[in-house]
Amino acid sequence: MRFDIITVLPALLESPFAHSILQRAQKKGIAEIVVHNLRDYATNKQKSVDDYQYGGGSGMVMSIEPFAACIEKLQAERQYDEIIFMSPDGVTLNQSTANELSIKKNIIILCGHYKGIDQRIRDIFVTREISVGDYVLSGGELPAAIVVDAVVRLIPGVLNDETSALSDSFQGELLDAPVYTRPADWRGHKVPDVLLSGHEAKVNEWRHEQALERTKLRRPDLLE
Amino acid sequence: MRFDIITVLPALLESPFAHSILQRAQKKGIAEIVVHNLRDYATNKQKSVDDYQYGGGSGMVMSIEPFAACIEKLQAERQYDEIIFMSPDGVTLNQSTANELSIKKNIIILCGHYKGIDQRIRDIFVTREISVGDYVLSGGELPAAIVVDAVVRLIPGVLNDETSALSDSFQGELLDAPVYTRPADWRGHKVPDVLLSGHEAKVNEWRHEQALERTKLRRPDLLE
Repeated sequence: MRFDIITVLPALLESPFAHSILQRAQKKGIAEIVVHNLRDYATNKQKSVDDYQYGGGSGMVMSIEPFAACIEKLQAERQYDEIIFMSPDGVTLNQSTANELSIKKNIIILCGHYKGIDQRIRDIFVTREISVGDYVLSGGELPAAIVVDAVVRLIPGVLNDETSALSDSFQGELLDAPVYTRPADWRGHKVPDVLLSGHEAKVNEWRHEQALERTKLRRPDLLE
Repeated sequence: MRFDIITVLPALLESPFAHSILQRAQKKGIAEIVVHNLRDYATNKQKSVDDYQYGGGSGMVMSIEPFAACIEKLQAERQYDEIIFMSPDGVTLNQSTANELSIKKNIIILCGHYKGIDQRIRDIFVTREISVGDYVLSGGELPAAIVVDAVVRLIPGVLNDETSALSDSFQGELLDAPVYTRPADWRGHKVPDVLLSGHEAKVNEWRHEQALERTKLRRPDLLE
């Protein structure tokens, strides 16, 4: 699977893609993540990628031409399944979207900045607008990293222990039960007895009860 | 405002905090972002920060001791308003939580990994659990960066143009209207006439209509 990310801040994305699971996925050849500097596609002498917005108002708008040039260069090289624009206006990312994207082959992600991007980029090129949540961020870079992380870890072979991804919160219907590790007693705070009992059926029953209780308390919407 | 982020992958967070608005906020002395390597607080010879979970099952659980050591060292140096644990089980981040956090002084953020963290860390130390959305990620680092970005940009003096943050989607009740910049005609795709009219009242009316229409179509829940 290949991600092409188009951004004015390629350096911001260096470390998130160079460590942990995303690094491992790239080393194994399972995922390819290429970050493109939008400024390399600026068409004017000043290498500007934004301009004042028509109709007035504060905030610069990202121009269509550099995005178009970068997208069209990539499209000439291979076919893309999706061109995603990260935007607070988009459809909120959830685990089912992540699952859906994890079976795609080539994806372009556009990172916005400033006041937004020229609407024509969205109308002409973008196939899907995704928001990571109802909050405003400085740009689309961190959201792009979130999408890549959520998707790549689902590709078979990326995680060492495949059962780990399947038993995560949101892959099932319930939040996870509490987990504990050594020491069994930390300054008087003890691990629940049942987990030390060695009685597998009781452990499973306790975990299911705890998961259900936590979900009821915290996220009743997941049970509806 | 100060953020202390505790993680096993400090390097992953290097570039997001070194650019753009977060860099500017730190240079201006408005925000201080300190990343702590959890392994520096490991108490055993192997510098391990995780262990098998009680009761069995796949996935390692992060131990209480290193987190406790790091948190207690920080608490001895200053008072913290919040100790936040980034978790898919947490309360979903939204703009009003970001606003609320932006007036705090000192915040610790704990990043989880592996199968989770020992429940006692959550019970004893954590004041608030925050999720950035309903999807599973490799760890709490990108979510921590999201929280820092969403919060720091709200602190007065961080953004160059203060009206920009106020007119973003989610600060008002509506999504943003479409925005356009030059050229007015790109391969036959034209900017709406009204934005070129120079008629401010008509522009404002059009923008309000567009924002309302987009919100109705994409996020009717925001209008309820």
